[in-house]
Parts: sequence; structure tokens; C-alpha cells
Amino acid sequence: MSSTTPTIGILGGTGALGSGLAYRWSKAGLKVVIGSRNPENAEATASTLQEQSGNVASVTGAGLKECASQADVIVIAVPWDAHKETVDTIASVSSGKVILDVVSPLGGGPGGLRALKPEAGSACQEAQNILVESHVVGGFHHVSAVKLSDVTSSSVDTDVMIVGDDDAALAVIEDLVSRIPGMRAVRSGKLMNASAVEGLTANLISANRYYKTHAGVRVTGV
Amino acid sequence: MSSTTPTIGILGGTGALGSGLAYRWSKAGLKVVIGSRNPENAEATASTLQEQSGNVASVTGAGLKECASQADVIVIAVPWDAHKETVDTIASVSSGKVILDVVSPLGGGPGGLRALKPEAGSACQEAQNILVESHVVGGFHHVSAVKLSDVTSSSVDTDVMIVGDDDAALAVIEDLVSRIPGMRAVRSGKLMNASAVEGLTANLISANRYYKTHAGVRVTGV
Repeated sequence: MSSTTPTIGILGGTGALGSGLAYRWSKAGLKVVIGSRNPENAEATASTLQEQSGNVASVTGAGLKECASQADVIVIAVPWDAHKETVDTIASVSSGKVILDVVSPLGGGPGGLRALKPEAGSACQEAQNILVESHVVGGFHHVSAVKLSDVTSSSVDTDVMIVGDDDAALAVIEDLVSRIPGMRAVRSGKLMNASAVEGLTANLISANRYYKTHAGVRVTGV
Repeated sequence: MSSTTPTIGILGGTGALGSGLAYRWSKAGLKVVIGSRNPENAEATASTLQEQSGNVASVTGAGLKECASQADVIVIAVPWDAHKETVDTIASVSSGKVILDVVSPLGGGPGGLRALKPEAGSACQEAQNILVESHVVGGFHHVSAVKLSDVTSSSVDTDVMIVGDDDAALAVIEDLVSRIPGMRAVRSGKLMNASAVEGLTANLISANRYYKTHAGVRVTGV
């Protein structure tokens, strides 16, 4: 993969967080492939993003496996209940690639949203357990999809806590974070520390509801 | 309890986080009781804090149950492996009181520190399950004990994510947070959302090691 123009494949790029990331990275000049179970939906999102980012050549759409196959860096941004199936789908085309897992295992229930407890410990660990020949990094869970997709705002004022076991893969994601103005990556532990970063999303959504805002996180002292 | 001069009982007030909180609150003019399994240790810490905070009447020491009995607000700041035993010890003297649980269930192991998964879901939920006639609030997990105890610094630049089910109890803790210059409470969900706030401590400790710092958290947009 070229360090200056990696192709980013975003599985679930039709969703709120995935399309927000696609918008920011295509705007930054990266080649983005939107992946969806339904390739037509992926292509429709790609068309919209092409107009928004003003970069008509950089966003295309494809099915999940095709998207992962084309990508240097694969972003998993599907709903939690589609996480394992999606990871299984791309396993054969992901060897050696960096995987960015942005999925928060959250569920509703009596009293509101809560973090779930995946059997593997976290979504990231579930992905890594399946994609044994890839390097999984977790991040972007606590970034507001609304702010990412806000075309009137040129920067997104937030830190991104990232977790992972492989130094080179963490550096790749640090670089991708830095392509979005206002954002900074903060290394926040290994994959075994992913659960709190994933679960924190429920806390920020709770804060959003209480304060009627779109909360972000800054790690001070770093 | 008087809204201007509540007595704060800090179980585990001889430890790093507990004594840091005791220092800041006694410095703010609140009456603080240090609680320890060993009352002599509690009294020794109280003597040191009396000198540091320049408030000779405000800090005393006692055993755990005696400390809880004297307090309007009970802070649980013991090591995780003493959490349940401590909560059991104070159950008979905690009815109707606000409980602030600052305990992070963390454990070592191969590869470093990680968040544990308490059977109740979180330390806060374990405490609430036992102290059914009290209102538990979680908070201060991700505040640097080093910064709290730094007598050369008049303020502690961090937000405090708090979780709880009772509005009045949350308001009591918001007030206590605001007594420490530089700090702000951010309501971040219910007790069922406590696990990520508790577990985040492992991520910040990881960041501390990587960046050689004492990291804190600011919630932006609030």
C-alpha cells in the first residue's frame, strides 16, 4: 500500500458513521470504496458522497467482499448484529491488511441503551480472532457521526482513542485520523482494552440526550 | 445533610485516589473522614492531609464502618479485590445515603492491565445491588490520582464522567465535583452504563505509559 494514497474500503459505508468517515476521507483526497450487502445501495451512497466531497473520482460502491478486496485498509462500520457475519464474509480477502473496527456492541432494553458483552470480549477481539492474518485496530467509536457528516464544518473537534496490538497497524490508523482536520489519535492500549472504548459510546449517547448535544472526547495531558 | 457542609467519608482514603480526593475536598473546606480497615492508618493519613490542606479541623480517621456511619456522602475508593467486602461492611449504616463508587475493576495478566468483568456488570452495580436503600453514583475513575495529590497545583484540569440512576444523588456528586477547581461533572448515563467508565481507566493508564503523561478526559460539546 502506498503511504500517500491508500484505498479505504468501508464496510457499512452506507450507515451514519461509515458514510461520515467516507465523506471526510474522500474530501482529504483518499480513494474510498463504500461496501454494502447491497451493491446498489453502496453505489447510491458513493454518488452522493462524490458530490459532497467534490472529488468525483474517489468514491465508488461495491458489495462487502468486493469492497474489502479492493481496499488497502478495511473499515468495519456495520451494525453490531451484522459484525460477525461481515467479518466472516471478508476473511478470505483480508490477509495482511489493516482492519479498522469502529463497531460498538450496543443494545437497547429496559431503561435505554447499554454496552453489550461480546463473548470475545469486544467487537475488535471478535474480528481479530477470525482475521488471524490481519491486524485489527479499534477506533472512532466515540466520534459523532453527525459531526463527521456535517458538510458545513471543515473540521471535527475530537480525539480518537485507538487500541491495537500491532505498532505498524496503529501507525496506519494514526495517519488516517490525522487526515481529518481537528482530529488526533490517542493510543489507548491493546485490543484487550477495546471493550471500554467501544462501550463508551453508550455513555456519550447518554450525555448527548441529557445535554442535547453531540459530545466528543479530548484526552488531556497527551 | 447540609448542602454547604456535607461530611465526606472516604473508604480507602489511605490509597492514592482516595487520599487525593480527601486532599481536594478538605482543601475546599469540606469535612472529610478517612476510612481504612486499620483505623491507625486512617488517622496517620488524616494527619498528613490536615497539614497539606491547611485545614486542621476537617480531616479525621476511622475504621470503615465508623467512617461510613459518620458520613453524609460515602466514597468507596478501595482496591477492587476489597470492593464487595467493604460494601458488605458498611451496608447497615448506609441507608438513605449517597454512595460515590470510584473503584475500577482492573486486573493484570499476560500483556498488561485490563478491565475485568464483574458478575454484576460493574463495581457500581455490585454496590447498588447490596446497598439497596442507598443511591450509588459512579465517577472519578479516570481522574489522575497523581494530579489530585499534587499540592503544587491549585486546579485539576479534567472532566468527571458520572453515572447513576437517581437524579438527586447525581446532583450531590455534581456539587462535590464542582468543589475541586478545574473539574466539571458530565452526566454520562445510568448505572447500567458504568462498566465503560470504570474500564476506561485501563485505557488512560495505557496512554499514560505510552505518552509518559497523566492523561485526563474532557467531554467536548457539553
